[in-house]
Amino acid sequence: MLYGALEAGGTKMICAVGNESGQILDQVIIPTTTPDETMPKVIEYFKSKLDDSLPDDEKIQGLGIACFGPVDVREGSKTYGNILNTPKIAWRNFPMLKTLKDALGDIPMGFDTNVNCSLLGEATWGSAKGLNDAVYITIGIGIGMGAISGGNPIHGMLHPEAGHLMMSRVPGDDYKGHCPSHGACFEGMACGLAIEERWGKPARELGDRPEVWELEAKYIAQAITDILLILSPQKIILGGGVMNHAPLFPLVRKYVLEYVNEYIDTKELRNINSFIAPAALNGYQGVMGAIKLAESAAAE
Amino acid sequence: MLYGALEAGGTKMICAVGNESGQILDQVIIPTTTPDETMPKVIEYFKSKLDDSLPDDEKIQGLGIACFGPVDVREGSKTYGNILNTPKIAWRNFPMLKTLKDALGDIPMGFDTNVNCSLLGEATWGSAKGLNDAVYITIGIGIGMGAISGGNPIHGMLHPEAGHLMMSRVPGDDYKGHCPSHGACFEGMACGLAIEERWGKPARELGDRPEVWELEAKYIAQAITDILLILSPQKIILGGGVMNHAPLFPLVRKYVLEYVNEYIDTKELRNINSFIAPAALNGYQGVMGAIKLAESAAAE
Repeated sequence: MLYGALEAGGTKMICAVGNESGQILDQVIIPTTTPDETMPKVIEYFKSKLDDSLPDDEKIQGLGIACFGPVDVREGSKTYGNILNTPKIAWRNFPMLKTLKDALGDIPMGFDTNVNCSLLGEATWGSAKGLNDAVYITIGIGIGMGAISGGNPIHGMLHPEAGHLMMSRVPGDDYKGHCPSHGACFEGMACGLAIEERWGKPARELGDRPEVWELEAKYIAQAITDILLILSPQKIILGGGVMNHAPLFPLVRKYVLEYVNEYIDTKELRNINSFIAPAALNGYQGVMGAIKLAESAAAE
Repeated sequence: MLYGALEAGGTKMICAVGNESGQILDQVIIPTTTPDETMPKVIEYFKSKLDDSLPDDEKIQGLGIACFGPVDVREGSKTYGNILNTPKIAWRNFPMLKTLKDALGDIPMGFDTNVNCSLLGEATWGSAKGLNDAVYITIGIGIGMGAISGGNPIHGMLHPEAGHLMMSRVPGDDYKGHCPSHGACFEGMACGLAIEERWGKPARELGDRPEVWELEAKYIAQAITDILLILSPQKIILGGGVMNHAPLFPLVRKYVLEYVNEYIDTKELRNINSFIAPAALNGYQGVMGAIKLAESAAAE
């Protein structure tokens, strides 16, 4: 069976076709500019995968949409499938799901945040395979979190926005923070843009400055400590460009254990190297999660 | 149908019988001292509600156990139903569920944390009725949190322990904190014992000191802000002795809105008085949640 997958990100749209094993068989990348420019190309791609001239087994059976947020993921809501108050003005209140439904007709569609989809991909085929309670944090230009509890993505009134967790300032750190809404929140202190503003160079040019990564690890570990105290996940996966600086992992693990201070005694925390781990799907976790979302929608 | 409910707390055990409407029809309170002293009385109570001489419709059809933590709530685990590394030495590693199963025989039993059960009670009959994503925080001698996501209690590797969230110190506050593990965590800064140690009097004698409640509200609001950014609940219920100081509610709501700073735009946050609300079940939420747990176990 073939499924369509759309990973709608702030800079690019990845349109793909994959199968029930998560294999990606075809993919095109379309820049995210404005809905008027971008969406016709996205629609054209998926229309070509639904064309009547195709044999049935070469047509996609559903579409999964992994969308940048904030988005309305509450099924039954009047604005279900819309992008909400994003700083990307052109996309504010854009009805992503409705636009695709109107254009592609009556095929099953699933819709979630890109970070929930990344976790869905990792929980189906990757680093969190088989787990029911897990967290995915992406630390790149911005910071986002997806989570599953009891096997299902966490939505609630909106969806997790843990990039904006409140932080306790590390003593001696007087950086004002990069977040326009909160200043020194998690994203404000630890995202890629914050690293660049604080140290005057992008993260990739700071590999030889251990103090950069000590400080970065302390903020990431604070956020992880709060997340594990609230969600009690079986695993926390860290992805995104900043985490490509591999020496961060041991530092983050060290500070999480220091902050938890043996208060939580579980086999997961005793195996900290597997509890706090990188993504396993080589950057394809979002697209693969969207494939899984499509498969689930088609099975309903 | 009648169900047994045990709310096992650190100072007392509430043993009760209730029906499927959550009505409590009978109740006794037994002090929590040591397992050897306390458990025979608990067992005697529930045995009397299972006695062969009773007509079938006066016997309990299941037992729900709402237990102080940390506890093992992972069904299938070897230590499922045990109390774990509690500071109450006599109860450490005590097999609560197994002891009751061995004594009471083959009746359906449900087991969860007391805070998850309080939320289950409120989500079934109280302030969170009908909601699938909600949080219950009790702020008393200590601080605990229960949560449901998608209608199910959050367990994961253990269960939420959000009493120990990391806090950003309020400027000017130099209190060292009351938590033996973390010092100035949420519980360390804001539990009833912290209030008493910080101000030299118990909370109930500090009603005329507005600065006490300003500071208390700022720490509670910090924790709520982090919880709502991670869990995205539709409602947050606050209970426990400290929250009986009613003027806390408006202060907490004010600071939560200040900390979120309009970043999250949902109808729930626009209705903050209903989003952050007191428990509705008059202190019976834990026992009533245990009744619901028993009913669910009997229905399986």
